[in-house]
Amino acid sequence: MRNVAIAGVGFTKVGEPWERSVKELFAEAAVAAMKDSGSPAVEALYVANMSGGHLQHQLHLGAMMAEAIGKPGIFATRVEAGQASGGVAFHEGVQAVASGRCDSVLVGGVEKMSDMLPECVASSQATAEDQEYVAFTGVTKTGLSAILHRMYTERFDVKPEDVAMFAVRGHDNAVGCAHAQYPFKLSIERVMASPMEADPIHVMECSAVCDGAAAILLRPAEEVGDCVEVAATEVATDAFSIAQRGDPLTLGAVRRAAEKACASAGVSLGDMDVLEVMDDTTIDGVLCLEGLGFAKRGEGAAFVAAGGTSREGEMPTNTFGGLKARGNPLGATGVYQVAEVVLQLRGAAGPSQVKDARIGMAQSMGGVGSTCSVTILRRG
Amino acid sequence: MRNVAIAGVGFTKVGEPWERSVKELFAEAAVAAMKDSGSPAVEALYVANMSGGHLQHQLHLGAMMAEAIGKPGIFATRVEAGQASGGVAFHEGVQAVASGRCDSVLVGGVEKMSDMLPECVASSQATAEDQEYVAFTGVTKTGLSAILHRMYTERFDVKPEDVAMFAVRGHDNAVGCAHAQYPFKLSIERVMASPMEADPIHVMECSAVCDGAAAILLRPAEEVGDCVEVAATEVATDAFSIAQRGDPLTLGAVRRAAEKACASAGVSLGDMDVLEVMDDTTIDGVLCLEGLGFAKRGEGAAFVAAGGTSREGEMPTNTFGGLKARGNPLGATGVYQVAEVVLQLRGAAGPSQVKDARIGMAQSMGGVGSTCSVTILRRG
Repeated sequence: MRNVAIAGVGFTKVGEPWERSVKELFAEAAVAAMKDSGSPAVEALYVANMSGGHLQHQLHLGAMMAEAIGKPGIFATRVEAGQASGGVAFHEGVQAVASGRCDSVLVGGVEKMSDMLPECVASSQATAEDQEYVAFTGVTKTGLSAILHRMYTERFDVKPEDVAMFAVRGHDNAVGCAHAQYPFKLSIERVMASPMEADPIHVMECSAVCDGAAAILLRPAEEVGDCVEVAATEVATDAFSIAQRGDPLTLGAVRRAAEKACASAGVSLGDMDVLEVMDDTTIDGVLCLEGLGFAKRGEGAAFVAAGGTSREGEMPTNTFGGLKARGNPLGATGVYQVAEVVLQLRGAAGPSQVKDARIGMAQSMGGVGSTCSVTILRRG
Repeated sequence: MRNVAIAGVGFTKVGEPWERSVKELFAEAAVAAMKDSGSPAVEALYVANMSGGHLQHQLHLGAMMAEAIGKPGIFATRVEAGQASGGVAFHEGVQAVASGRCDSVLVGGVEKMSDMLPECVASSQATAEDQEYVAFTGVTKTGLSAILHRMYTERFDVKPEDVAMFAVRGHDNAVGCAHAQYPFKLSIERVMASPMEADPIHVMECSAVCDGAAAILLRPAEEVGDCVEVAATEVATDAFSIAQRGDPLTLGAVRRAAEKACASAGVSLGDMDVLEVMDDTTIDGVLCLEGLGFAKRGEGAAFVAAGGTSREGEMPTNTFGGLKARGNPLGATGVYQVAEVVLQLRGAAGPSQVKDARIGMAQSMGGVGSTCSVTILRRG
């Protein structure tokens, strides 16, 4: 297998651009990635998208986006794995280059939700859960996370404020980030005073409805000079619904994907200089930190509250704001995460820069831990 | 890259089993493929599905089906490319084994439509077309094929009856096929007397709403003894909408995918002993035959009418009935096609057997020619 380089990255500002279509958003990110790479060559295209079928009534995004970026004719497909779609599509794109099948592969994610009714968006997100046994009850993604939140604080005697600090830290990091949806500070008081989204999770602990697109151009490392390389990318699953798991607070897919990725890259968690984790809600972020192994079981919230995930902390995490503050355009989020780690490793993260970052990890998750992707990048 | 073998195939009877879920259908096909292979080992899963989001409100089928087949934890994702989903998922699965990444990959397709209102199914199928420029007009997939049908018969002075013969030939082949939706003969008189679905396409020229699942287990050829191997699998796209193409009657994606596959396998069209083509409507089948190169432009319908595609003809085509008579469970169809070619090459096609079949081709299509997959299989 060949080493794979990140030849270019591009993304749109996450926001609520009602006047722009999924096609426009995707093309903006893709063209930016092509320009960043210095070449418009694209042999194959993987499009990550979760809710296009429900919200734009649009499937078949592979061929559609191939045309939108000026490449009708090439290999193209959509990859969907709930909110992990971006991370899984990235995995497929890396394989296409690593195997020698393609010399230039574009992986792009896009999602557009902001011009839809909130109940449509919530309903659409619930499609990542089992309709026959879970979602038919009306429980939302946040509702399921709320169950885990309550279990977590009760079992480990954790203060809800410590869990909520994940949102505060994300907003701290988003200040100065040009592509973030909410580039401003958020106090813990404001989080805890915000209405309940799904008790005990406050609305300010949840990522918001938004639109965005991100793209990454992959090439063989030998053809790209000084660059960021893919050290490993792995995808794992777990029992589909939290009720089917021995311990719902253990995210087995996250653990498995991280262990495989570290083994494959020949690195340990201690080698990471920068980390992007999935924090659709604050408790998701805390449990992912623990699942990856950056905090012990039951200690993730305290680690966050103590500053362990801050930019100057032990494990700088979600350095552009994460899903909460940079924004969470579902299918695109996994691609944003990888692109942000690339900027850090290039030393091109501007006010978000972590000093001397050489190795970084990006982790995305579909459902409540049903699918997880973990990617490790390294400065070449 | 390693040679890839078809270690096992499995599928359900195509029909209208209202009482069965997508999960049950998928598991039946997957378990059959595992049993056929002689081993339950599965390292990675690619699930092809088009309309689950609309019709079952169910996305994230990768992780869901991994659990359903008793393999929670493994790599799993959904692949979607409209009606080409099955062919594209097969391509991704083959790459995973060929590259050495995995030693056992299951590719499965599933679709369930029969318990839905016809207008929901038609609306769902239209999501493979551009919503902003095409589908918003209310045109259906069959409506777009009807435009091509009219252009075709007018430009090449072809009798509509000759186009309609594609359906008659499919039904001829389905007789005796245990997994076919409609295993009986259909006369040309009955086709031409059936109501218009989208003038000039009669309802009996269209594949019907149905449910079904098919699965294929892939392994390295060196680990499987006497077997059917994947000689080539290619995917290509075209301008997304027929109005954007220089000549809408030329299916460029079909031509490109076929040329690449033949070159990659080192074979020519004349080497094919058996062929599966996409005939969602009769004119689709005729244009695919021409796009692949088995008939000259404007001569495909006459070729079919003269018996060229019959089981004893020059190019035995859709030997189990094709989309019209075996049935067209959208995302699963491309997997059924490959599985049927496998049965032919194994000499296990029963009453549908083509004598001494050694090389075969399966072609699937998403949208009206927007995405095409072509797979060539060879008896090892």
